[in-house]
Amino acid sequence: VPGGGGRRLTPQAPVGAIDFGGTKTSLAVVDAGGGVLRQVVLPTPPRPSPAEVAALFRAAWTDLTAGLPGHLLPRTAGLAAPGPADAAAGVLRRAFDWGWRDVPLAALAAGATGVSVRLENDVNCCALAEMRFGAAAGHPDFAWVQFSTGVGGAVVAGGRLLRGASGLAGEIGHVVLDEGGPPCPCGRRGCVEALCSGPAVARRHAQVGGRGDAAAAFRGAAAGDPRAAALVAAVCRDVGRALAIVGNLLDPGLIVLGGGVTASLRHHLPAIGAEMRSRLLAAPLRSLELRPTALGADAALLGAAALALDAPEPQER
Amino acid sequence: VPGGGGRRLTPQAPVGAIDFGGTKTSLAVVDAGGGVLRQVVLPTPPRPSPAEVAALFRAAWTDLTAGLPGHLLPRTAGLAAPGPADAAAGVLRRAFDWGWRDVPLAALAAGATGVSVRLENDVNCCALAEMRFGAAAGHPDFAWVQFSTGVGGAVVAGGRLLRGASGLAGEIGHVVLDEGGPPCPCGRRGCVEALCSGPAVARRHAQVGGRGDAAAAFRGAAAGDPRAAALVAAVCRDVGRALAIVGNLLDPGLIVLGGGVTASLRHHLPAIGAEMRSRLLAAPLRSLELRPTALGADAALLGAAALALDAPEPQER
Repeated sequence: VPGGGGRRLTPQAPVGAIDFGGTKTSLAVVDAGGGVLRQVVLPTPPRPSPAEVAALFRAAWTDLTAGLPGHLLPRTAGLAAPGPADAAAGVLRRAFDWGWRDVPLAALAAGATGVSVRLENDVNCCALAEMRFGAAAGHPDFAWVQFSTGVGGAVVAGGRLLRGASGLAGEIGHVVLDEGGPPCPCGRRGCVEALCSGPAVARRHAQVGGRGDAAAAFRGAAAGDPRAAALVAAVCRDVGRALAIVGNLLDPGLIVLGGGVTASLRHHLPAIGAEMRSRLLAAPLRSLELRPTALGADAALLGAAALALDAPEPQER
Repeated sequence: VPGGGGRRLTPQAPVGAIDFGGTKTSLAVVDAGGGVLRQVVLPTPPRPSPAEVAALFRAAWTDLTAGLPGHLLPRTAGLAAPGPADAAAGVLRRAFDWGWRDVPLAALAAGATGVSVRLENDVNCCALAEMRFGAAAGHPDFAWVQFSTGVGGAVVAGGRLLRGASGLAGEIGHVVLDEGGPPCPCGRRGCVEALCSGPAVARRHAQVGGRGDAAAAFRGAAAGDPRAAALVAAVCRDVGRALAIVGNLLDPGLIVLGGGVTASLRHHLPAIGAEMRSRLLAAPLRSLELRPTALGADAALLGAAALALDAPEPQER
């Protein structure tokens, strides 16, 4: 058994990780190297109450740990939370449109699992995971930008998450690129999200006569369809413009791209990087590197594990 | 005499401060509360060589310290440097168009003054000064944005400067607001600097038939000239748009505005703040506060003093 009191005298034991998402919830036992030893995935109930989530966590944790030998039983866990969070207090401030406000989710998860739980916003978790296990290993300064249903981001400076005054630092998705651009779910027009998210690319594809499918747009471009290719080129320019704002404002040295759209964008990094660098003010900024995620859809789950691995070991009771 | 070895057993002695600018260089003796005890200002020679700057510092430091009683003689100094700097190495990477590259300016200043010197980029110095003595006192998270001949900025997170991978974090000036906007000195179009700097406001004033003078534009607006008022309203919208990008991306909680144009902009903070807040994504971000500089033109000089005040006391020799 590892020594208590926050000192680690023996190799670090595995930890629990919970990626609590809007449609599904993943729980895993993860070792210190980021290896997933066991995993359970359950659907998240629609518009759940906190009590339903506690029941979900309790059932999933029981499944996850059933029959595990003692040396693999997690004694701490991390939780990737689907909204802005007060990490220090363990509180999820808001979640989707569920009407949740200031839910003490870390305490709720600790009650359901019987282990201590640290919580962090899921986008921030992705950045922590890339820093510890992925594309940003060895990079104390970098930005994470994810293109999926929405567009979000996180910033790491000096090895630490930039949280911001209200836990929302990194929100590149609603920076406006084109005042007269397409409408955005946020109510404005021309935000990065309105141009570069998966649904935005799909809508742009439909507007040029395509099937209205982001993946089909990228496939069409790869197959030589000129309209799809022109659309993808325009999307890559917009992504490059967004990343240039991050680059000029934060000088991050490295930007790691994640989210579902990155599976397609990763084939266009030279074009995206060229557009981005053409917009970076000073020569030193232009050494800014772009990399795709090394962790894919597991980034938030592994970030939850990183939270727990960074936590002091609990005292023996 | 204060105790050596980095411990402060007695009230902190005054420090030296050097604000090395493109047209003038200020040196001062500053006490721990930010009070300027004595100051010397000299013109900076045009396109100076490092040797000329060393001679300038030597002469000015001799003037500054002549006849000072021993307990007021600075034993350390800080230097606000006119370009991107490697603060840890004490190196000024570039300066204006002087052709300077990687000048070891801290060592040069130490040789000229006989005291240890810490160096930091002058924009970053302004942020340090506002945090220690000015409008950001008590705010561990805030952004500094300055509107003068150019537009620049700095970011403080958790009480520490965000330096970025190449010392250039905070460069809001060359984020593009309007792709088709006016040309910018950087070679692109529609940058924040091309719309909101002093020269940009002057040019916009000339375009609407004014005298081509930023201060006159603001005076005209205050006096009820409708063309000047419309121009100032447009400038304030552009400033608000730029600050919203900072607000969404960094969630700083507070933005302090500085630079010469702020003497005029400070009368328009409600309009600037309204435009900014209308563009901030989430409700918690919209509590973002705007304040004008509390230190005015002394910000960089007092930031240089803050550098020295934060330095460990030199050992007695």
